[in-house]
Amino acid sequence: MKAMVVPELGEPEVMQMRDWPTPEPGEHDLLVEVHATSVNPKDCHMRRHGLGKRLTLPFVLGYDVSGVVKAVGPKVEQFRVGDEVYASPSLVRPGANAELVLVDERTAALKPTNLDHVHAAAMPLVTITAWESLHHRAHLHSGETVLIHAGAGGVGHIAIQLAKLHECQVITTASRDESIEQCTQLGADAVINYANENVVDRVTELTGGRGCPVVLDAVGGEVFNESMRCLAPHGRLVTLLPPPADAPIHKLFSRGATLALEFMSAATLHKTRLSAQGEVLRTVTELVEAERLKVHVSHVFPLEALAEAHRQQETRHTVGKIAVTVK
Amino acid sequence: MKAMVVPELGEPEVMQMRDWPTPEPGEHDLLVEVHATSVNPKDCHMRRHGLGKRLTLPFVLGYDVSGVVKAVGPKVEQFRVGDEVYASPSLVRPGANAELVLVDERTAALKPTNLDHVHAAAMPLVTITAWESLHHRAHLHSGETVLIHAGAGGVGHIAIQLAKLHECQVITTASRDESIEQCTQLGADAVINYANENVVDRVTELTGGRGCPVVLDAVGGEVFNESMRCLAPHGRLVTLLPPPADAPIHKLFSRGATLALEFMSAATLHKTRLSAQGEVLRTVTELVEAERLKVHVSHVFPLEALAEAHRQQETRHTVGKIAVTVK
Repeated sequence: MKAMVVPELGEPEVMQMRDWPTPEPGEHDLLVEVHATSVNPKDCHMRRHGLGKRLTLPFVLGYDVSGVVKAVGPKVEQFRVGDEVYASPSLVRPGANAELVLVDERTAALKPTNLDHVHAAAMPLVTITAWESLHHRAHLHSGETVLIHAGAGGVGHIAIQLAKLHECQVITTASRDESIEQCTQLGADAVINYANENVVDRVTELTGGRGCPVVLDAVGGEVFNESMRCLAPHGRLVTLLPPPADAPIHKLFSRGATLALEFMSAATLHKTRLSAQGEVLRTVTELVEAERLKVHVSHVFPLEALAEAHRQQETRHTVGKIAVTVK
Repeated sequence: MKAMVVPELGEPEVMQMRDWPTPEPGEHDLLVEVHATSVNPKDCHMRRHGLGKRLTLPFVLGYDVSGVVKAVGPKVEQFRVGDEVYASPSLVRPGANAELVLVDERTAALKPTNLDHVHAAAMPLVTITAWESLHHRAHLHSGETVLIHAGAGGVGHIAIQLAKLHECQVITTASRDESIEQCTQLGADAVINYANENVVDRVTELTGGRGCPVVLDAVGGEVFNESMRCLAPHGRLVTLLPPPADAPIHKLFSRGATLALEFMSAATLHKTRLSAQGEVLRTVTELVEAERLKVHVSHVFPLEALAEAHRQQETRHTVGKIAVTVK
């Protein structure tokens, strides 16, 4: 089969379309014909830095897929050939930037019938991340106020909607007009323009001096430190990136706070709680089919132009998601 | 009234019995005649270091109380004069090393009828801490394996029992024969003698290489770093102390772990979720009365000998708790 391969670490243009061995399904695997995939920050990070000893060059990126089941492993129970499914493939196997990809059936679900493959492929990684962050990690309660950084981004724009579905107040951050507009349309109660407002001061003001019970940080670095200062007593801070090595995390102690390091790929990497991902996606399918949750795709590229898709991702200015068509 | 006062920071002998103003109940307060209190590591730490700007000298320590309600504030609803109650008083008001102490009624419960005041006073702080750590913070699931450091200590010996009541496997650490015996009697499935075994290696071995889904660290410092290495993917590490400033917390990211900083006094300090403490103590009363949970008191001192009680606490070799009789 054809795949867009990373033969060496580097800039987007290192990637090349090559022949790649057709994968063989393991016991619980679905062999999925890839109709579409999407680009996530993880792709660009791995293209530049790899994944240490866990992944050797050359490798194939692509951690979202929507497509059709072509074959199943001997222990597969929930799906059959011909099913239209979506999932987020493992980081340590060849990804979905290819004609075919393997996904563990426990991590997959039938794609929403009212979404095409392009939109369905834009959902798994960011939606599982947002869901796990708010529900499995922060244990978000209805009525709580949640601060969602980068509300117009991939995870952010889904997290705003999930928090509103859970009857929470949403404060979010954005800077460009288009991003602010997007956040407002998705239901954010307050949008802080971080380019000309002090986020900590505004959050303090908006929460009557208490801070937010839940903060979701999809940005990291200085925003992580800022997030700590936005946290209410007993608050839960969920970060999608490793905290800075010098972050003064001990300062969270007097507030009795919790710090959750949300890395959705930990499930496939360590083969733990795989079925939680399939469960989230089944719920997402229901929400999308009921038109209660939507994904925003702002750019679509063919697989041949994946380098361009990566460049767009690396602007860090994309509203919503970048999808990639394969078939 | 009489109180054992800390007039200046320092060694145990700085404390002096003095006259102290009788406290006036606020809206939600119970004025409790102190029959007994207990010593916790927090007392010794605050006697040496104070609590920053939050507490000015002279102050009265004592963060456990069992006694009798003598008066109630105008908004008190759950208790009446004459009730025998137990609770953990606020860190930022005069504590229970005195004839009378104030406690917010939302943080209190009727003491177990089958415990005397000495044993009841040994429970609130450590039991609320252990309960919050395992249930509110780690969201412990039945069947999971939990590593409880210092299993013979105040929090540890309660946490072992709570984890067993929740049908979990308990691994704990201890070093002296008396401590190891105590842990075994309380139901620990494995006791690691940290004086002559490598804790990380033993935990790895006992968990088939996975690590523990939940770790409770009541020790801190190097044990915190060790605790991180004992954690399974998606694990929850609860620490009762601020993590070391240089702890490599970012390394928990690839395991998708959660770090909870459990500080039970955050509730009274920040006036948040106060009633959660009363709820825990009501459940604890039921468990004690059903003889499903017990507290181990190894030393009892009169209030006049509080300095000696602090010295015993500072040996860090106490099995269970040190109680202090007042009336």
